[in-house]
Amino acid sequence: MQSIRILTDNEVSEILDMKNTIMCVENAYRNKADNRATVLPLVSADLIEGKADMDIKSGIYQAENLFGLKLVAWFGENEKRGFPVLTGMTMVFDLNNGSPRALMNARHMTAMRTGAAGAVGIKFLAKKNPEVLLVVGTGHQAVFQIAATLSAVPTIRKVYLYNPRNREKAQLLQKSIHSKLSGINNDNNDLNNERWLQRIKMVEFFAEDNLEEALSKADAVVTVTPSCQALIKEEWVKQGTHISCIGADLPGKQELDEKLFQRAKVFVDDIGQASKVGEIQTAFRVGLLQEEVITEIGAVINQNEKGRLSNQDITIFDSTGIALQDLSVADYILKIAEKKNIGTVVNL
Amino acid sequence: MQSIRILTDNEVSEILDMKNTIMCVENAYRNKADNRATVLPLVSADLIEGKADMDIKSGIYQAENLFGLKLVAWFGENEKRGFPVLTGMTMVFDLNNGSPRALMNARHMTAMRTGAAGAVGIKFLAKKNPEVLLVVGTGHQAVFQIAATLSAVPTIRKVYLYNPRNREKAQLLQKSIHSKLSGINNDNNDLNNERWLQRIKMVEFFAEDNLEEALSKADAVVTVTPSCQALIKEEWVKQGTHISCIGADLPGKQELDEKLFQRAKVFVDDIGQASKVGEIQTAFRVGLLQEEVITEIGAVINQNEKGRLSNQDITIFDSTGIALQDLSVADYILKIAEKKNIGTVVNL
Repeated sequence: MQSIRILTDNEVSEILDMKNTIMCVENAYRNKADNRATVLPLVSADLIEGKADMDIKSGIYQAENLFGLKLVAWFGENEKRGFPVLTGMTMVFDLNNGSPRALMNARHMTAMRTGAAGAVGIKFLAKKNPEVLLVVGTGHQAVFQIAATLSAVPTIRKVYLYNPRNREKAQLLQKSIHSKLSGINNDNNDLNNERWLQRIKMVEFFAEDNLEEALSKADAVVTVTPSCQALIKEEWVKQGTHISCIGADLPGKQELDEKLFQRAKVFVDDIGQASKVGEIQTAFRVGLLQEEVITEIGAVINQNEKGRLSNQDITIFDSTGIALQDLSVADYILKIAEKKNIGTVVNL
Repeated sequence: MQSIRILTDNEVSEILDMKNTIMCVENAYRNKADNRATVLPLVSADLIEGKADMDIKSGIYQAENLFGLKLVAWFGENEKRGFPVLTGMTMVFDLNNGSPRALMNARHMTAMRTGAAGAVGIKFLAKKNPEVLLVVGTGHQAVFQIAATLSAVPTIRKVYLYNPRNREKAQLLQKSIHSKLSGINNDNNDLNNERWLQRIKMVEFFAEDNLEEALSKADAVVTVTPSCQALIKEEWVKQGTHISCIGADLPGKQELDEKLFQRAKVFVDDIGQASKVGEIQTAFRVGLLQEEVITEIGAVINQNEKGRLSNQDITIFDSTGIALQDLSVADYILKIAEKKNIGTVVNL
């Protein structure tokens, strides 16, 4: 009889630290570039117009002998009704024989792997030893972007927080950020995690209410808003800046002035998906950006393609979020869960 | 905390009878025609070329307030390795708030709902009171096609069995068919099921080795082979015949001579999916069949469109299998499982 291992969000959170999430996301990108991982077409749908949607991301992760999918549903009005706004489930199968292996609550792992994506963009594409980070957007995911970037890029010592619609939210995040960051497990090794917490105490956080000014100070930028129009003007971005674009993952979403792509070197997680639903979709559609000049980040990580060439380049990483991140992280989680017998094994 | 109900294949088999599966499949088609159910794009992929593939079918079933998906993986060489050749999992979510509701082993329910699809085609499109059924293909699914047709169409009294590659297989099925049919629960009401078993004892089964001759006797035909080339020649099909095409569900598959579509009234489960992966794909591609003359079967069931106009019409139903069949059946199963507390509820 077949069986499947079910993991709760708490169990996933106990197993998964940010350090290994970053490693898994790097591996996902690298394996994709090495043709050891395959992204399948995204399915997305409105469930209740403007109030609820869902998407299904699926893929084959040949590198670790599994395949599977993640369904994520967003219900915008759930908070006031006492349900989670985001529900996600990852299901993983054995590529050797098709057997089901695991069903995992994907809420925490999605937050972690999305944070890791922005940070991997900065790690591989920002100028050397970046010191100043700007985060545009101050919601739940902003915290994970900061946690991941501080983990992956140890030279960051200042972080500017900007909320495009509400100045107070940036101030609130600035006040609570240290406590929020200490709630995210950076390293399953307790001693290492303690060192990391000591280190991030030295990082300075500022609430910023002038985006142009913030951009003039930043070495690296993460955009993580649900915006459907450009927030960052082309002329505000100085040479040498790196931007990881996280917010855009559906048709119509946009955070950067599309003209900026003409001055920038452009990197994506997956060209097919990014050109349809990512930050590059507008520039791509109106002809400001051609496929030939876009590089998948995995090819930079595995050194088949060049990333940044000088400290004067503007680099942009458009991360739409691909199933391979989920499968790579799920593989890591599952190996530990099987070894330590975490979760509930149910017959099928 | 969120939770999910897990149902094994045995639990699904205990709950689901053929009579209600047929009702669910009719409802799925009807609700689609009434815009109370939405098919999302099919994702399919080779896992190991020629030896393993998988597909993900997803949809929104507004009629019963749920959405979800089914992943089915086929591993052709699994039997000799002691694993199931087909693995399928259906996952269902609440359309009101996105909460996960159930994960079900989809093996038996897929066999049942696929059988029901062919039978619903015959029930609504064959000429009045059909008496003779021909089944082309004698594998596992052929038995479910026969069970469903005998359940949905009580006038059938003769069934011809034909295997295009191996005459002996038709003879073997003919010998074992009564015992195989009695293994499929037709009606959860024991007394009704007993009556049904008595009735099917009166049905005569014949192994046939001449397809042209078999077609000359048949009122209704089900094709259920993995063929990639036409088995049924255009000139073999007499006026008045109905054919439910079940086998073709991937690019390249074909069971009928595509010229037959010029003489036939053509019905499908979903026009988008059927024109890409169904029996009509070849006729559609080479221009022998246009979208304007194809009718979705749900519109016949809800009487918005005409089906057969006379006993001389040739009718073809191309069933590729849509997620709405799975969601409708899953809804039926889940309601009973929740009421009787069948399955394992696991926290998420």
